[in-house]
Amino acid sequence: MVLSKQIVLKNHIESGTPTLEDFEEKTFEFSIEELKNEEVVVKLEIVSPDPYMRGRMTTRKSYIPPFEIGKPIVGYAIGKVTKAGSASKYSVGDYIMGHLPWQSEFIYNSNSPYANKIDTTLAPLESFLSVLGMVGLTAYHGLKEIAEPKQGETMVISAAAGAVGQLVGQIGKIKGCRVVGIVGSEEKIKYIVDELGFDVGVNYNSPTYKDDIAKAIPNGVDIYWENVGGVVSDAIWPHLNKFARIPLCGVISQYNSTEKDVGPRIEGYLLKTSSKLQGFIVANYASKHAEALKELAQWYKSGQLKDRHTINNGFDQLVPSFLALFKGTNTGKMMVKL
Amino acid sequence: MVLSKQIVLKNHIESGTPTLEDFEEKTFEFSIEELKNEEVVVKLEIVSPDPYMRGRMTTRKSYIPPFEIGKPIVGYAIGKVTKAGSASKYSVGDYIMGHLPWQSEFIYNSNSPYANKIDTTLAPLESFLSVLGMVGLTAYHGLKEIAEPKQGETMVISAAAGAVGQLVGQIGKIKGCRVVGIVGSEEKIKYIVDELGFDVGVNYNSPTYKDDIAKAIPNGVDIYWENVGGVVSDAIWPHLNKFARIPLCGVISQYNSTEKDVGPRIEGYLLKTSSKLQGFIVANYASKHAEALKELAQWYKSGQLKDRHTINNGFDQLVPSFLALFKGTNTGKMMVKL
Repeated sequence: MVLSKQIVLKNHIESGTPTLEDFEEKTFEFSIEELKNEEVVVKLEIVSPDPYMRGRMTTRKSYIPPFEIGKPIVGYAIGKVTKAGSASKYSVGDYIMGHLPWQSEFIYNSNSPYANKIDTTLAPLESFLSVLGMVGLTAYHGLKEIAEPKQGETMVISAAAGAVGQLVGQIGKIKGCRVVGIVGSEEKIKYIVDELGFDVGVNYNSPTYKDDIAKAIPNGVDIYWENVGGVVSDAIWPHLNKFARIPLCGVISQYNSTEKDVGPRIEGYLLKTSSKLQGFIVANYASKHAEALKELAQWYKSGQLKDRHTINNGFDQLVPSFLALFKGTNTGKMMVKL
Repeated sequence: MVLSKQIVLKNHIESGTPTLEDFEEKTFEFSIEELKNEEVVVKLEIVSPDPYMRGRMTTRKSYIPPFEIGKPIVGYAIGKVTKAGSASKYSVGDYIMGHLPWQSEFIYNSNSPYANKIDTTLAPLESFLSVLGMVGLTAYHGLKEIAEPKQGETMVISAAAGAVGQLVGQIGKIKGCRVVGIVGSEEKIKYIVDELGFDVGVNYNSPTYKDDIAKAIPNGVDIYWENVGGVVSDAIWPHLNKFARIPLCGVISQYNSTEKDVGPRIEGYLLKTSSKLQGFIVANYASKHAEALKELAQWYKSGQLKDRHTINNGFDQLVPSFLALFKGTNTGKMMVKL
């Protein structure tokens, strides 16, 4: 018998900020003696808590079904195969990545389409959860399919020191844009400007935020990468240029709202500039993942794409790390190593 | 000397509903004896008051400059050439259409790019201000370039009995969509359903509007043609289907707002459905006008596209007809015949 820990959701949380009390750590016992032929035993190694998971904690209809009460949280993660059934797709020692349960060790059907083997000789594990994973693909497809950046254009990015934002800005520089990042601290401004090469950083927590952003974009905004929504974005709409493109990647400011989130209506701004606001999720472009990963890997190997991670250690850090996403304390991709 | 009447703007109106007092009728005298070679004298025949003109009555930056105080209002209109200079592009008796001053008679430079000769043997004058003019082109390009309607999809249209809306819905039917129109009266429901062939009409003035629209779109919304904004549209966002397209053609509910127009933030809806909200003006697609007019004319001739007009008569009806646009009293294209 194997004793394993798991994090389960105790209740759905329709609105408001989730707390530690909404989750429960359980121990879970299972036998690995009679592993079915196609099954493997997986040891969870590194986990990616992501903001979109907040939506699965509600009962609301979305592009992915809600988490089930009493069942383990499921998220993007990498695990190592420690035992393999005779007809398994995977061998002992393989690393698999995909949607995996937040459980320290578990039996997994190797035919599941939700995980794939990764080649860990190409890059460190962390990179598969950032630049060479869902995060990198999100930045890549959103830019290519919606933003279509052109040389000399102004690109503004909210949550610019976050997992996706940091990559969007660097790809923006590769494409020859003037890149302005919006972040929540002076320290993060240093990171995106000095380490990543953004042109300017603006702190939305500053009392002069509205003026600061106006100064940072004297030629207006051609591309606004939207991760955040709310008052951060309210300062951007009046600066849109004609034919601006706004890939809508997330609205983290709304995920925990307790009231109906109201704000200035933005349709007038989009109308008078002929701008495009388009929501997307990375799965929309699944058929183009392979091609995208090729280019991302080239940029990564050549040093044109850097990615910082905020790595917390230990199974007990899973929930606190997820909750920290909504406080904006992470720089780069938030991860938990077990 | 010729005595002519003109409508001038007395003051800019940044917010609120314009009134008769914001305009002034002046008489204007000019000599036509010494017409320059390239000039013509034009007698205004039929005028198109349009909602977008409200924006030009403010000093705000937009896609078209503000009207000048004390100068005549300029709008889409058709005039007849009554005298022509020796090197004029036009001959006496020609009809020209374009951006013309609200002045009963005036001298016009025939080389101006803002007007063109029309062939009045093809259709009655009225049609050049509706199905075969800016209005028809707006419907055509917005559908083709942004909405891309497909057989069996659900298309919802706000201001559906209005100038553009009535054409959008009929083209939607040609494309095989289920077409739902939102209008402001039971009489207009009859018009769009019985005369134009829309599948359903919904009255936004009904106290049960939210429920009515929900019932009218059991399969959700694939295309929402946005003419109105505000609470009319608030009822639509929760019903968007995955990959919905929203051509943003107007937000008439906001044009006269006295306060910052606030409402539920819509980014969450667009994000979770991967929907696209895109502003546009007809001029964006100028290079495709000729091709569009060819197809519109075919539909018009074959009876597949009908267009009703609300026609008022007399120069003194110009301003009242413009103001009436914001009350929604017109069915089809509002026009004034002089």
